[in-house]
Amino acid sequence: MKILVINCGSSSLKYQLLNPQTGELFAKGLCERIGIEGSKMEYENPAKDFEITLEHAMPTHKEALNLVISAIVNPEYGVIKSVEEIDAIGHRVVHGGEEFATSVLVDDAVMGGLEANSELAPLHNPANILGIKTMQELMPGKANVAVFDTAFHQTMPAEAYMYALPYEDYTELKVRKYGFHGTSHKFVSGVAQELLGNPAESKIIVCHLGNGGSISAVKNGKCIDTSMGLTPLQGIMMGTRCGDIDPAAVLFIKNKRGLSDKEMDARLNKQSGILGVFGKSSDCRDMEIGAVEGDARALLAEEMFAYKIRGYVGNYAAQMGGVDAICFTGGIGENSGKVRAMVLKGLEFLGVDLDEELNSKRQKGNVVLSKPESKVTVFKIPTNEELVIARDTYEIVNK
Amino acid sequence: MKILVINCGSSSLKYQLLNPQTGELFAKGLCERIGIEGSKMEYENPAKDFEITLEHAMPTHKEALNLVISAIVNPEYGVIKSVEEIDAIGHRVVHGGEEFATSVLVDDAVMGGLEANSELAPLHNPANILGIKTMQELMPGKANVAVFDTAFHQTMPAEAYMYALPYEDYTELKVRKYGFHGTSHKFVSGVAQELLGNPAESKIIVCHLGNGGSISAVKNGKCIDTSMGLTPLQGIMMGTRCGDIDPAAVLFIKNKRGLSDKEMDARLNKQSGILGVFGKSSDCRDMEIGAVEGDARALLAEEMFAYKIRGYVGNYAAQMGGVDAICFTGGIGENSGKVRAMVLKGLEFLGVDLDEELNSKRQKGNVVLSKPESKVTVFKIPTNEELVIARDTYEIVNK
Repeated sequence: MKILVINCGSSSLKYQLLNPQTGELFAKGLCERIGIEGSKMEYENPAKDFEITLEHAMPTHKEALNLVISAIVNPEYGVIKSVEEIDAIGHRVVHGGEEFATSVLVDDAVMGGLEANSELAPLHNPANILGIKTMQELMPGKANVAVFDTAFHQTMPAEAYMYALPYEDYTELKVRKYGFHGTSHKFVSGVAQELLGNPAESKIIVCHLGNGGSISAVKNGKCIDTSMGLTPLQGIMMGTRCGDIDPAAVLFIKNKRGLSDKEMDARLNKQSGILGVFGKSSDCRDMEIGAVEGDARALLAEEMFAYKIRGYVGNYAAQMGGVDAICFTGGIGENSGKVRAMVLKGLEFLGVDLDEELNSKRQKGNVVLSKPESKVTVFKIPTNEELVIARDTYEIVNK
Repeated sequence: MKILVINCGSSSLKYQLLNPQTGELFAKGLCERIGIEGSKMEYENPAKDFEITLEHAMPTHKEALNLVISAIVNPEYGVIKSVEEIDAIGHRVVHGGEEFATSVLVDDAVMGGLEANSELAPLHNPANILGIKTMQELMPGKANVAVFDTAFHQTMPAEAYMYALPYEDYTELKVRKYGFHGTSHKFVSGVAQELLGNPAESKIIVCHLGNGGSISAVKNGKCIDTSMGLTPLQGIMMGTRCGDIDPAAVLFIKNKRGLSDKEMDARLNKQSGILGVFGKSSDCRDMEIGAVEGDARALLAEEMFAYKIRGYVGNYAAQMGGVDAICFTGGIGENSGKVRAMVLKGLEFLGVDLDEELNSKRQKGNVVLSKPESKVTVFKIPTNEELVIARDTYEIVNK
């Protein structure tokens, strides 16, 4: 069983070929600078410990995907003999709006729905659609499945997803909280539930902390709230995104600085967050180094970063009536013991008893970071969004 | 000892004459439609149970304040013989920025500071300044004290008040969280601390719920966080304000609807909140009636209103490392047992044990609404912002 997972960005493309049942990874890689000079593809065959970077012109996603296919069927370093071995293709799609609460087999009606949602994710959905169209062209007859970043959050109740805006902004413009990173929140909360022994009731908070970041509250397996909103800008402080601010500050800063709406949008999405406060980098590791060196703005950014996450943990514990497990995932969540410890500081009243020594160790895989007697279990769980996409694709194709 | 407290809006003015030490109220009232046709003044002498409404032209705040003075010295229904009996005048000023962390005696330097902060509160500070100038003119030589809505929140740590925006937006434009309703949060948290028996350490959450609303976290007597921000738009859902939304939604809606910045600002501040979701009124009482009658949007608005507040209660409990008391104040907080019960739903894990019967009763004054065995004490505490202004004014004048 082999599923090809495709994650298309506007000028990049990530891919994996994997077994949805065992999770075995056959091949993975990345195409960068599609449509830009200097494009290249990375390809990895983990079983043979083989890696290669190919510099090759990729004017469009079609050339990029053709290169991916050539690599995985390459007689020397490929992993399959022919594309016929690929059972189906799973595509990450950023915005499913309200129509798509689960993954779906792509047909013409679905393609129309994806295009209708492009307004809500103008930077992402068109690239995702392009990826699907290209695969339909390159591998006619193969099933394509769309797996949405927003779908897992569609179980949120209205009081969590509605904004207190004029009601017509919801009915006419579809303005509401959607949430993102859904495949990650689904995967990590699912692993946590298993590790807790699949109790009848569970209250799990997932902190997905990467360059983008979001927190979600998962009660009895269903998402009841998440920190990202209409777009990925809302919520915690991120690498370059501001997260929660006074909505009036948007127009205040725009007017004081004489910016256009586009420039203001870029300011909030690309020049804020860790980069905005720290000033030197958007990377959490650079911020941590700066903090150790005593850089005042690095120290401030670090405190702010943890503070906002801690606030969401408390918020979501209140919305679930308590919390059984707090999970850390994503590049920062999996690797920064310092961030985890800062986030959990003062949460003893919730029943959190972190094992500081375990938390500061670097360990692979799923790890419990709290003491055995801790009422709340703290987990580090590496996320695997591609596996969720492959699993969903497999299930839909074999229904 | 008599302090005149003045709260000037752009076209209205509230006043009280009171004893700052005993809290005794001599006279109070309201001037409306200043500078607009049909202006009138309400005046009340509570000791004599006397009320009067005077219709009188008030082209400017000067005529309004002259009318106030005439009323309180009126031989028939006034409360003093001459303005000489007034010891000092306390003015509510909305925005003190970072310069004013406490109340101050007004002098030329202070007036300059108030004007510098007008940019941050263009609707409010100019009216407050006008009130001070008019009183300086009408009662030359009397001390005027400025009491700021923002001052109590100036103890917030940087991780709470900073936004994750480009740092220059803070240094150059003074964009940060300031918070409002400070006199109310100060008063109510102070009363709660006393009612708790003035413990050495205390963690108090104040829910000030009126047409505007804000939540604050007060640890050991100092505010460590509050829900309003640069402006009063941020935070919980209010009568007509949206509170927290995705900041990207501001530009999204503005562009989709082709609104100017001013129109968008008005949409967020005046057409959102309870009014936006419920659709029929911004008044919490109308929403509650609608909910009882089964109006779907009233029910939604009610759930959302409680949901957002509950989230802040959890958030602030996390930031303080627990909570000893949750206080409700303001028109809604003091009078709606339903809202209080909805907010506290599911918070048993924090140690909240609400006495449903006590909570549903209408009682005057400060009331404990939780059961005696409740780990967290739930209070209803009527706010008294004028008394805080009078006390601060008295203290400063007698220093």
